[in-house]
Amino acid sequence: MERLPGFRDFYPEPLPHTDVWSAAARQYIFAKWREIARRYNFCEYDGPPLEPLELFTTKSGDEIIGQLYNFTDKGGRQIALRPEMTPTLARMAAAHERQYKKPFKWFAIPQLFRYERQQKGRLREHFQFNADIIGESEPAADAELIALLIDTLCSFGLTRADFIIRLSSRNAWQQFFEAKGTAPEKAPASAAYEFFQVIDKLERVPAEETGKKLGALGFSLAEVNQFIESGHPTPELENIVQNLAARGLRDFVKIDYRVIRGLAYYTGVVFEAFDCQGEFRAIAGGGRYDNLVKLMSGGKVDLPALGFGMGDVVLLELLRARKLLPAFDSGLDVFILIEDEKFRPASLKLVQDLRSAGAAVEYSLMPAKPDKQFKRAQELKASFTAKMENHSTVRVRNLKSREEQVLAPAEIGRILHH
Amino acid sequence: MERLPGFRDFYPEPLPHTDVWSAAARQYIFAKWREIARRYNFCEYDGPPLEPLELFTTKSGDEIIGQLYNFTDKGGRQIALRPEMTPTLARMAAAHERQYKKPFKWFAIPQLFRYERQQKGRLREHFQFNADIIGESEPAADAELIALLIDTLCSFGLTRADFIIRLSSRNAWQQFFEAKGTAPEKAPASAAYEFFQVIDKLERVPAEETGKKLGALGFSLAEVNQFIESGHPTPELENIVQNLAARGLRDFVKIDYRVIRGLAYYTGVVFEAFDCQGEFRAIAGGGRYDNLVKLMSGGKVDLPALGFGMGDVVLLELLRARKLLPAFDSGLDVFILIEDEKFRPASLKLVQDLRSAGAAVEYSLMPAKPDKQFKRAQELKASFTAKMENHSTVRVRNLKSREEQVLAPAEIGRILHH
Repeated sequence: MERLPGFRDFYPEPLPHTDVWSAAARQYIFAKWREIARRYNFCEYDGPPLEPLELFTTKSGDEIIGQLYNFTDKGGRQIALRPEMTPTLARMAAAHERQYKKPFKWFAIPQLFRYERQQKGRLREHFQFNADIIGESEPAADAELIALLIDTLCSFGLTRADFIIRLSSRNAWQQFFEAKGTAPEKAPASAAYEFFQVIDKLERVPAEETGKKLGALGFSLAEVNQFIESGHPTPELENIVQNLAARGLRDFVKIDYRVIRGLAYYTGVVFEAFDCQGEFRAIAGGGRYDNLVKLMSGGKVDLPALGFGMGDVVLLELLRARKLLPAFDSGLDVFILIEDEKFRPASLKLVQDLRSAGAAVEYSLMPAKPDKQFKRAQELKASFTAKMENHSTVRVRNLKSREEQVLAPAEIGRILHH
Repeated sequence: MERLPGFRDFYPEPLPHTDVWSAAARQYIFAKWREIARRYNFCEYDGPPLEPLELFTTKSGDEIIGQLYNFTDKGGRQIALRPEMTPTLARMAAAHERQYKKPFKWFAIPQLFRYERQQKGRLREHFQFNADIIGESEPAADAELIALLIDTLCSFGLTRADFIIRLSSRNAWQQFFEAKGTAPEKAPASAAYEFFQVIDKLERVPAEETGKKLGALGFSLAEVNQFIESGHPTPELENIVQNLAARGLRDFVKIDYRVIRGLAYYTGVVFEAFDCQGEFRAIAGGGRYDNLVKLMSGGKVDLPALGFGMGDVVLLELLRARKLLPAFDSGLDVFILIEDEKFRPASLKLVQDLRSAGAAVEYSLMPAKPDKQFKRAQELKASFTAKMENHSTVRVRNLKSREEQVLAPAEIGRILHH
């Protein structure tokens, strides 16, 4: 029986040489995400992987349904597997914001789902590091969030030679749009949205087509390109850049107005992290969405907010390409050799005592030849082997240095910890 | 907008006083599960939360559909949100067993789903610690698995005064069943399954009803009770008990033939962990399922196996009742006080340096009165406050001992680590 198309199995190392994923690599990435969030005092939250469909259509309109993994449940409810975390966050924040001192900094590591027309190798789920700051409208919050993004990527060993944050602003484009006027027959809001969509696709759509679309909105490609090339920071962007400079992180960001982000709900600063060699899709992206909590709460709660998402798939591809993934060994501390079955009970006691002291311990469940046991200890890259020599002494061998010592069982713990 | 009924939101601490769950408590439980699995050299795996419906009906028959969270996807496929992990494990193990040395010890922490008729407060999802040993038929594997279960519960501070493992065997009941013969008009396999179901419900169904059902199968309640009270261990159970005794864990188990486990696929030893005061449902349960991998692989792979599952909900209730949950503080190391805004850039640099050194650091994103900042540091139970006094010295205060020191920024790191 096969798993569903577009879903992943995560296997223990060493991996079979087929289309499966490493559970250890996934856990490595999650642990780093949690560790850097901890340093920044971001608190973990989570919601259900399933939400009412309207949680997502409220925000993005019915057009999003085409990409959603949605279905009707046994009770006749319209359900969607969450395609992104922000609506859940907005729902949760709005429900209990009074409990938390503003601004609050939250993160989650949700599994997200989509159901598009199946393309070969295209995944229908991924995991995402989501970090958000709720309740602060000043650029100091944007800088704190972008610093978290930079440090998260650096924690994997990536450097400025590997990635760059392209920083932009919907406000800058909004001002550009309003200063130039718009096609008179369109409502300004919908024209602005169309305009943002054209900018979002600048790098992916032929210049001629873009020029036509801009023309219909009353703009020329030349003036758009001129605005991009000017790269003149708005006061909010200038403020963020100065804040990051104080932290020593100035080099990790550049103003780049080609970034505008596709999603409709962004309101201010937007940004994306890219690999410098341009081989991969965006590593992460985010921005301000100051109106979303109000929208999601039916007007009851009005809180400015901003956040980013970083997926596990592009990150893993990048880390693999840059050879930054560690070897995922068993991390075994001791392999207990049982060469004489009469020592099995005493060996089991030793296993138990070492595990109780915090060591990772393995042994052969069944009688096995000494050389087979030792080979297994080596395969598992155990730090030590230990063997009961009689009921009161253990021979301990450091598999790296090959040093041996004969000890009382109670003394082994000390050796492990240095 | 509300979340779906039967699903949970996990919030940061301090929790609002309503029907929400603690993300920190969840993470605390997951971390302990992972830590004890590491000590036992169990390797993590995971599969998709969605599987083809037939993965579950193959094992349990169509009757299980009534409890499943199943639906039809956009491609017309019959899908189920996984109600348990074992079928996924059997699928994954069968697909790549050649890659892994037998026996292999795997664990997962899946979220599991069900869709029963809605009862008040009844959850439709929970998380479960699943640990399994694949490829070893001898009781040494059962003992290793049960030791893991015991040590996992002990890692939360639970003791023998809090819980007991009730150990039983389908083999013992099978022998009992076969020795006595069966109602001649029934096929032996289906009669045995019916008989096991009656035993499984002994403690929940009135004696009279049980007596009638047993009578129809050719047994009397008296002889069943006599068999239970004899508590005579089979050789395999004796072997397991001796193995656990060698580890010093004998007291944590007792033979109790009333345990038989409802699921159809168990083949040998079965066990359940209960709180000693009998207040809660089973904390964990498991057993041998030596035929399942063969069944799930269409006969291609035949491997003996055993495992247990431990849910997060009962465990959390028990830990709360026994007052064994720690306080979930922010874990903040340093709160940086910025009393003079001219030191903000230097303070941001200090924030950055401390975080880079591994410390959890918070500060006020916006200018705030000194006493408000200090109060916030206390609320967050920070270990230290630190304040730039000029561009080259920092005043560091230990909030517990109230000791103060004046240091160069580069020297702070040292203080944090003791």
